[in-house]
Amino acid sequence: MPRAVVLLSGGLDSCVSAAIAQEQGFDLFALSVDYGQRHARELQAARDVARALGAREHRVVRVDLRGIGGSALTDASIAVPRDRPEAAMQAAIPVTYVPARNTVFLALALGHAEVADADAVFFGANALDYSGYPDCRPEYVEAFQRLADRATKRGVEGRPIRIAAPLLAMTKADIVRRGADLKAPLHLTWSCYEGGARQCGRCDSCLLRRKGFREAGLEDPVAYEG
Amino acid sequence: MPRAVVLLSGGLDSCVSAAIAQEQGFDLFALSVDYGQRHARELQAARDVARALGAREHRVVRVDLRGIGGSALTDASIAVPRDRPEAAMQAAIPVTYVPARNTVFLALALGHAEVADADAVFFGANALDYSGYPDCRPEYVEAFQRLADRATKRGVEGRPIRIAAPLLAMTKADIVRRGADLKAPLHLTWSCYEGGARQCGRCDSCLLRRKGFREAGLEDPVAYEG
Repeated sequence: MPRAVVLLSGGLDSCVSAAIAQEQGFDLFALSVDYGQRHARELQAARDVARALGAREHRVVRVDLRGIGGSALTDASIAVPRDRPEAAMQAAIPVTYVPARNTVFLALALGHAEVADADAVFFGANALDYSGYPDCRPEYVEAFQRLADRATKRGVEGRPIRIAAPLLAMTKADIVRRGADLKAPLHLTWSCYEGGARQCGRCDSCLLRRKGFREAGLEDPVAYEG
Repeated sequence: MPRAVVLLSGGLDSCVSAAIAQEQGFDLFALSVDYGQRHARELQAARDVARALGAREHRVVRVDLRGIGGSALTDASIAVPRDRPEAAMQAAIPVTYVPARNTVFLALALGHAEVADADAVFFGANALDYSGYPDCRPEYVEAFQRLADRATKRGVEGRPIRIAAPLLAMTKADIVRRGADLKAPLHLTWSCYEGGARQCGRCDSCLLRRKGFREAGLEDPVAYEG
């Protein structure tokens, strides 16, 4: 059975991305990164999703991105924006952008794929209904594939590790529908940037998630404040 | 004054790479990675080198690569090879190769460069007298530059961060000579893969270093066992 390292953030997108890897016949090696994010709620969600999907293993690697800072997600002194219209989200790279986060995550996944002899790395980047992050675009994924081919023992030996971003061209509504079709454990996911008892419903991530469920005509199984 | 993030491992190459950045007029933002390596000796060397070069700051970011394993440098149960002839070093990727290490390090340096608004990242990769690692070759560095241009806010805005590997085409002897010319603090560096009181003189890294000093006709200021 071919193996895939699946990056799980605990959110909706990475859950559906992992379910797609499973549908494609991969044995799942789940990987999450504890990078000093505001709250541990999403790592718990990642653990729950990995278990529900029957992943072979779930590793959590610690990287202290607070040592670098520069983002509302790793620096408590920077506020997470609320109630922004979508045009504002995409007009500029927002304060929730964590510099080079996806590059760090993919690098770790690539290293783990080498050790686990996995054929692919799956991650949930999405270029349509996204939050304006540069490292969620097709040209970024293509450049990382090219790097991976040159960076790894497997790449040098002619058995490249595929970098798969199956959600790249999907809308949030497509992602929700696809997840529902695959019976992915969406009820276990957590998208909110804040660490409350319930999802805030007002940060960019909550707003995009809500829109996705609304447009898919499905009810979000995870509760929101208010 | 333009700024450069300089990756400092504590070793000879990164010390000379940083000294070159300084010679080119950059203000140095030193970055080291505590990745669960066998010994803390090299991090102390990195701190000493940063101080001697008058770096503006020195950050140590923790990334637990032991969570991934697969290398003699992060897994104490895998022995570090000794007394290998150079042909053997380069014939195959050795057990001291840490999967995706340079990709993780460069990703962190890239993120830090974004936050510090630095124009360049300097690292000490060297493709000639090296230990057979895939991520120390020109095609790797070129692929990372391409990725960096697409991964970052600065890249998107047309102010790309330059990935500089000034030692890429140099022999170890060239590197030693260049370091001596620049009065780089070579006496503070540490190259050995083992964590003894002195450098072992027998691991691949010590062997390459010794050869470099010998061929440069200079005395290595750092002592060896035996």
